[in-house]
Amino acid sequence: MEGNRSDAIAEIGAIVGANNIVADDASIIDRTKDISPWRRRGAAIVYPGTAEEVAGVMKVAARYKLPVWPFSKGKNWGYGATMPFRDGALILVLERMNRIIEVNQELAYAVIEPGVTQKQLNDYLKNNRISLWSDCTDSTPQGSIIGNALERGVGYTRHWDHFGHLCGLEVILANGESLRTGGGPPNSLTWNTHKWGTGPFIDGLFSQSNFGVVVKAGIWLMPEPEAFNCFICELDDEANLPSMVDALRRLALTGILSANFHIVNDILFTAQLIQYPYDLLEGGRYLSPEARIKLRQRLKMAPWTAIGGLYGSAAQVKVARRAISSELRGIGKLTFLDDRRLRLLTGMTRIWKKVHNLPLLTDLFRLISGSSLEKAEAIPHLYPIMKGIPGEYIVGFAYFKNEGSRPTVDVDPARDGAGMLWLAVLCPLTGKYASDLLQLCEPVFHQHGFDLSLAFLMINARSVLALIEIFFDKRNPDEEQRALALYDEITETTMRAGFQQYRTSVAYSDRIMRPAVGLQKTLDALRAAIDPDNLIAPGRYGIGLREDYDGN
Amino acid sequence: MEGNRSDAIAEIGAIVGANNIVADDASIIDRTKDISPWRRRGAAIVYPGTAEEVAGVMKVAARYKLPVWPFSKGKNWGYGATMPFRDGALILVLERMNRIIEVNQELAYAVIEPGVTQKQLNDYLKNNRISLWSDCTDSTPQGSIIGNALERGVGYTRHWDHFGHLCGLEVILANGESLRTGGGPPNSLTWNTHKWGTGPFIDGLFSQSNFGVVVKAGIWLMPEPEAFNCFICELDDEANLPSMVDALRRLALTGILSANFHIVNDILFTAQLIQYPYDLLEGGRYLSPEARIKLRQRLKMAPWTAIGGLYGSAAQVKVARRAISSELRGIGKLTFLDDRRLRLLTGMTRIWKKVHNLPLLTDLFRLISGSSLEKAEAIPHLYPIMKGIPGEYIVGFAYFKNEGSRPTVDVDPARDGAGMLWLAVLCPLTGKYASDLLQLCEPVFHQHGFDLSLAFLMINARSVLALIEIFFDKRNPDEEQRALALYDEITETTMRAGFQQYRTSVAYSDRIMRPAVGLQKTLDALRAAIDPDNLIAPGRYGIGLREDYDGN
Repeated sequence: MEGNRSDAIAEIGAIVGANNIVADDASIIDRTKDISPWRRRGAAIVYPGTAEEVAGVMKVAARYKLPVWPFSKGKNWGYGATMPFRDGALILVLERMNRIIEVNQELAYAVIEPGVTQKQLNDYLKNNRISLWSDCTDSTPQGSIIGNALERGVGYTRHWDHFGHLCGLEVILANGESLRTGGGPPNSLTWNTHKWGTGPFIDGLFSQSNFGVVVKAGIWLMPEPEAFNCFICELDDEANLPSMVDALRRLALTGILSANFHIVNDILFTAQLIQYPYDLLEGGRYLSPEARIKLRQRLKMAPWTAIGGLYGSAAQVKVARRAISSELRGIGKLTFLDDRRLRLLTGMTRIWKKVHNLPLLTDLFRLISGSSLEKAEAIPHLYPIMKGIPGEYIVGFAYFKNEGSRPTVDVDPARDGAGMLWLAVLCPLTGKYASDLLQLCEPVFHQHGFDLSLAFLMINARSVLALIEIFFDKRNPDEEQRALALYDEITETTMRAGFQQYRTSVAYSDRIMRPAVGLQKTLDALRAAIDPDNLIAPGRYGIGLREDYDGN
Repeated sequence: MEGNRSDAIAEIGAIVGANNIVADDASIIDRTKDISPWRRRGAAIVYPGTAEEVAGVMKVAARYKLPVWPFSKGKNWGYGATMPFRDGALILVLERMNRIIEVNQELAYAVIEPGVTQKQLNDYLKNNRISLWSDCTDSTPQGSIIGNALERGVGYTRHWDHFGHLCGLEVILANGESLRTGGGPPNSLTWNTHKWGTGPFIDGLFSQSNFGVVVKAGIWLMPEPEAFNCFICELDDEANLPSMVDALRRLALTGILSANFHIVNDILFTAQLIQYPYDLLEGGRYLSPEARIKLRQRLKMAPWTAIGGLYGSAAQVKVARRAISSELRGIGKLTFLDDRRLRLLTGMTRIWKKVHNLPLLTDLFRLISGSSLEKAEAIPHLYPIMKGIPGEYIVGFAYFKNEGSRPTVDVDPARDGAGMLWLAVLCPLTGKYASDLLQLCEPVFHQHGFDLSLAFLMINARSVLALIEIFFDKRNPDEEQRALALYDEITETTMRAGFQQYRTSVAYSDRIMRPAVGLQKTLDALRAAIDPDNLIAPGRYGIGLREDYDGN
């Protein structure tokens, strides 16, 4: 292929327009930055503008046997944002395809293209006074809704399960042909309202995989609820964590919790608020138990903090509040926030911030509010996300080990040299399994010289995803190497113990499916049937590795 | 193959045991009876006892190129219960594989084999005092849970979407190899708790299709709620139907309705209560508008009756009752039933039944209860189904046009010569589309000499499935022919208007996927990759038709 690459690029340029393909090294490196330590280089970056152009690109790629790695926006930071599994592939970025094609107010759904961002859809709904909410992640507002949903991202509202709320896909296959899932006639009235369709449900084939390029999708939206409350439960005694997990499971299983919850440990919450507290290290590579206590005192923070949203009619939210209070009584300190209380908190924080330089008054603030200024300042940024309004604030935690301060606008950790790896495993939603997982992970983190940063995110009423962050200082090559070694050991250790991966990084692709022997073989066979030249994202989620796959 | 068939049968007999294969015509005919008019003959019926035996059967079938049609229990009455698309296939009935392998009380799921029936799992939970509910359909208690879920059947509780609550499949492929979906390691802790798994979600490939034989599955169960109410809304003015549909959609979208609802027209409700009222025909082939009014007066029945369940804590159910009352006020007559009110009704009915032969007292009953005795007698049979307890009563409607009375125990419409065809299409959940569909269908029914019997079943908050029944008298060949002609015309007419099929009968398989051109081609390619000899249920849901498929 090597010799023909420039021909292929020229042909593709003729399809998408010369402005919409970039093949010089500097531009490619600049555009494919990631916060992970991994580096894989694409041959070119192409920005098609329509589904037809995507089909055209695929046809050229097929002739030249050129692998194509599609990304919606390329903001999958920490998992390999715009990174192919091997050097030399064509990077297909769908960000120019950003039309909101339809919003159906009565049936509460939208049909969008992959370039539509979390911010764009939310703004569209707000600007047009449509009383529907889109869900969002706590990552960048510039992230793609479709891309995130296909990677099975999660948010906070009743529609937190993003893949679960996709309905109806239009896909370009490796041969450039297109298909619409759902199994109905071309004029089907229920393409975007009936998820399972007629005949086999195949939307899942295009999720966490490489069976095609999704160029359009329906996404269900949530009617704006009459009432919203956010609950925060702070756990001063770590020993209560299993009880809290069990209580939240019961609330989810009985339908009291209609959305999900996030339980964040002190390290991750700290990363959210301030830069890494190097002053507390005292010569170590990670915080000692004593240093963590000091840190928590400084930030008025509990070892674990749970947060979740309550959505519904005023009466429904009231019932949910009572049930939650009753379940969590004695387990942690419970606070409910609504819009009114939030305004109060924001006002109070603003006043105290003005006199921030007076240590005595800061202490007084802590005393009155029961919170540190840092924590109090964070809440107004977290709260809107629980209403589906994306914001840049939370992404700031990726800067934890950066030098100096972090930006609050135009946040771009990849550009700014932030160092972080995501590592996420699934865990049955019980206190016992959550504890087991912590006990498995913490010693490994310490052994490699890192603090365990972890959040439990409910992913359904029976499972929680343990989102593990490895923060490292990119200026420190030793730390970067240790981060990679830790990443490897944790993924292998957890997998061996039966904790399957929730989602994986490009770099782990070659190992992810190994343990699922029969499945791996079948997936390879299925994909080979519609992508015989192994063109689309070869190796993604372990599918189409071919020469690497030893078949056992 | 013909010449080798007896060899194949002998080899299979050696695997499953001679007692577990039946190849004589009389037994085959007896075992594969259906209430539809379609007749397709299998070559033999095999009853494997284990997954290994299923794999063994598949390997023999592969050598002899003998098509195999798997059925869990073969109770898919009205869609083609144990019917292959063409004569001569091996019928694989999995009813001996009926182990309840695990019930996890904490995480609320069970792992079962395909032979486990609705009754069996419900009995198991009750007998072992496990406070979890399984959902059930209103068809026979002897139906398979897995079979129904794979066909995407619906029930009544919060877990009404049966496919949506499957989690983790074990599948035997055409080559006899097995795979487990979910993508985790063999010791995965979340196989039955995390539906989407790791990597592509492929469970949907085995639903309404022919990609493999499911031999084990996880199914999520629902914690027994503190409170349960059933709501019934009777619509005296047909013109209010769209308003009712819209109101119920709003209740579902906002999460007030946590389960689904069924809206039944007068014909279907009548079929539930009594034998066909031939006396009202007055020479016609279907009931005139006047006759229908008479019929409704006789049974104290509204043109449309909605029914649904409310599940949750006492406080949640109370909130839901209020919201429903407020939405449906002025639209229809609303009644709420709980266990206490049901006991009252049952007692009252029992007393009045004793004096049933006194017409004056029967009239008095109507006056006091606002109900007919027939209707009052039906309620205690419907009510448990909404709590997941299956019963034989509802299946009785299939006997509508049978001679004489219907059985109340050991109900088996296929054995007893009942004549009925199911025909189910999907419709966006709005009053307008529901009306459009009715206006499309009713004239076609009348033209063919039938009453339109229809129920709208909410299938998610944005879609409703219109379940259409064609009742015919099997003793009347002309009526049977007209039923088939009607079936054809309605399926084609609704499809052309954009109403896709919810689920289809074996007989319609060759046409179901035709309109979804790109999808049909892709499904054929995918399946050929793992079933190159087209062995498993060839033609099911339009997949693997090959010679029949003209590609347009």
